[in-house]
Amino acid sequence: MAGVVRMATSDLRFPTSRELDGSDAMNPDPDYSAAYVTLGTAAGEEGHGFVFTIGRGNDVVCAALEALRPHVLALDMDAALADMGSVWRRLVHDSQLRWLGPEKGVMHMAIGAVVNALWDLAARRAGQPLWRLLAGMSPEALVDLVDFRYLTDALTREEALDLLRRAEPGRAAREEDLLRVGYPAYTTSPGWLGYDDAKLQRLCRQAAADGFRLVKLKVGADLEDDVRRLRLAREALGPDVAVAVDANQRWDVREAIGWVTALGDDLAWVEEPTSPDDVLGHAAIAAAVAPVPVATGEQCANRVMFKQLLQARGLSVLQLDATRVAGVNENLAVLLLAAKFGVPVCPHAGGVGLCEAVQHLAMFDYVAVSGTLEGRMIEYVDHLHEHFVTPVEVVAGRYRAPVAPGAGTEMLAASRSRYAYPHGPVWSGQTPVDVTA
Amino acid sequence: MAGVVRMATSDLRFPTSRELDGSDAMNPDPDYSAAYVTLGTAAGEEGHGFVFTIGRGNDVVCAALEALRPHVLALDMDAALADMGSVWRRLVHDSQLRWLGPEKGVMHMAIGAVVNALWDLAARRAGQPLWRLLAGMSPEALVDLVDFRYLTDALTREEALDLLRRAEPGRAAREEDLLRVGYPAYTTSPGWLGYDDAKLQRLCRQAAADGFRLVKLKVGADLEDDVRRLRLAREALGPDVAVAVDANQRWDVREAIGWVTALGDDLAWVEEPTSPDDVLGHAAIAAAVAPVPVATGEQCANRVMFKQLLQARGLSVLQLDATRVAGVNENLAVLLLAAKFGVPVCPHAGGVGLCEAVQHLAMFDYVAVSGTLEGRMIEYVDHLHEHFVTPVEVVAGRYRAPVAPGAGTEMLAASRSRYAYPHGPVWSGQTPVDVTA
Repeated sequence: MAGVVRMATSDLRFPTSRELDGSDAMNPDPDYSAAYVTLGTAAGEEGHGFVFTIGRGNDVVCAALEALRPHVLALDMDAALADMGSVWRRLVHDSQLRWLGPEKGVMHMAIGAVVNALWDLAARRAGQPLWRLLAGMSPEALVDLVDFRYLTDALTREEALDLLRRAEPGRAAREEDLLRVGYPAYTTSPGWLGYDDAKLQRLCRQAAADGFRLVKLKVGADLEDDVRRLRLAREALGPDVAVAVDANQRWDVREAIGWVTALGDDLAWVEEPTSPDDVLGHAAIAAAVAPVPVATGEQCANRVMFKQLLQARGLSVLQLDATRVAGVNENLAVLLLAAKFGVPVCPHAGGVGLCEAVQHLAMFDYVAVSGTLEGRMIEYVDHLHEHFVTPVEVVAGRYRAPVAPGAGTEMLAASRSRYAYPHGPVWSGQTPVDVTA
Repeated sequence: MAGVVRMATSDLRFPTSRELDGSDAMNPDPDYSAAYVTLGTAAGEEGHGFVFTIGRGNDVVCAALEALRPHVLALDMDAALADMGSVWRRLVHDSQLRWLGPEKGVMHMAIGAVVNALWDLAARRAGQPLWRLLAGMSPEALVDLVDFRYLTDALTREEALDLLRRAEPGRAAREEDLLRVGYPAYTTSPGWLGYDDAKLQRLCRQAAADGFRLVKLKVGADLEDDVRRLRLAREALGPDVAVAVDANQRWDVREAIGWVTALGDDLAWVEEPTSPDDVLGHAAIAAAVAPVPVATGEQCANRVMFKQLLQARGLSVLQLDATRVAGVNENLAVLLLAAKFGVPVCPHAGGVGLCEAVQHLAMFDYVAVSGTLEGRMIEYVDHLHEHFVTPVEVVAGRYRAPVAPGAGTEMLAASRSRYAYPHGPVWSGQTPVDVTA
């Protein structure tokens, strides 16, 4: 039996709060971080995965990764990679660990990192980028990856099979198209709340010149500021670039409706208007602010919550995240749900490594699930890519399709040692943010 | 400034899986556990809190408790106890830790343990049992404990104030009543899936003789078994004792409807028919299985989920849990929501220490919030009480109102040392359950 012989976890943190990159109405001072896991086989193969967090508590996710060690070290790698659906169920339905969610929060995200590391290893072994490995699998093999428990009132295995089979004939043409022209991106780089007006306008002009057709601004701290920043952004962007806004869960339901109405109805979308748990709240907001579309998903805990947001028409742009749910398998369930309900997926990215990871899911969706780019874009933030072995390439407002084997999740060894918390050179001797100030 | 000078956490586990106590359709082999926290002041005061888990991963919750240490050690105790609403917000809305939920799972439960430990200390300082301390607070002071963020579309601060004011005149009479006759209990002790038919019937006869008027059976593994066990239980219980069933999230929506229909409609309630996250699923099940009431809540992640279950009429028996949400403050929000929607609260208990902790919330609810015992009962399982300094007293099917100062959460020092994992005498040299078997 050739199993995992090595599992290493590390707490990696980038001191981004010093520059206010990533500042929004709910997250004023993030230190972008990764609870990172490496799996190694006796044959020298490796798989890399991580959970993205924003600083404090990254160690708690590392502890959750450690809680999975007995499961991981018991894997027979050939059997595991041949039946990732079973591996997923074994991890998610562990009869004792399940109590810690169930299927949400720290434990669920840690499972996602392990699942993603296994997919990284699988893709390397196949000599394929992850999106292409997935897009080459049969509809039957793909639905075997999905746990349909709690989904069958909205999507059955048979319906999922039908969806995938309908997309099969066009796979080759779309793959070729993707390799030629890439996948559309939008950018959030200009719009952080911590940036002043001049920086906002300068970065907006840059974004338009770089070929982006949508820019997203953070809102929700002060309505007057938001109105002004929106006006300044539009002036700088010109008529050909759309603007979306992101409230990062700042509002209650009624407040969201009032605020968005005050911002006007020519918004590409309003993102995370309220608690990510509030399905009924999202539905009420969506109905009230139409035609402005509601977007959410980056902190949607699991496929059951996505199912309901779709059933209740609480979102019309679905923003899946590579490290919030339990990895590739659960995100495949989410892509299938979105396809069933006819809702476009525009993945959340940014942070550290999220662009690198999530592009594979969006590209796989285009080739083998939804079969379309209509209304689809991947978020892009030009930040921290230099720490990855295969950083994303975004050219003229589009993600180039990655061709290197793997899931894009491997961070450079030098970065992993430099940003190790609290003893790496970036942190030692530094005082972290005073939580009690 | 007199603050917390000592914070100790411990991983305590009881090897309950060896006897199949606590076995149900989703949790076949729980080792009842507590991630335990003790806070101490320079004056020698103590407060005790814990998160109940079922074994593996209890260490992850301990890591989350440790992540709260800087917040806890920065507290000025006088100021904290005078404004527990602010303390709650500071912990739950920590700008970096929030990412790990938000407001759900490991991190949220750990915050609950710290909040409950502070309330334990507050009640000891006041020389009152917690239920009485809370029931003696003014409506204004009580609503100050609640974070109404994300609730205002269902319950505003003003509506909550009104509810509490309407209940004020009867407080003294209900407190007297409670001290005289106690609070109704129901029992789950007979109904674990791991028990054979003879043990089930013996324990049912015992429960009826002990004065319980409702017994709960675990169901959901096998329909034929469930029908037989339900029949055997009814034979043993006689006509005066109602039977509820608990599926522990075993079913999908359609499956739940079919199964419950097959069990018949003279059930006191069906509990946790599906995923605790599935608000719309619960609503569909509730509509289809009426008149059988749907009960849920023990794994409901937070007040936003409870709000929606009430808004959607997805439950008609609300089962709050002492250690799933972020402590007393959030459970007060849940009690107020239940009162607003006119739904009875029948708290989840059992496990280790849950009876001891949750009785305070139910009794406070009766005295100062809902003002009624109609349709209300606290779960009771006769198990592990001997480890607590002030164990519950259940006599003739009723919880006696506790009179000792505190929140009931203190475990005996001897038990804490005996069941410490993995080095306490109960565990050292023992092989834990093989997770990969």
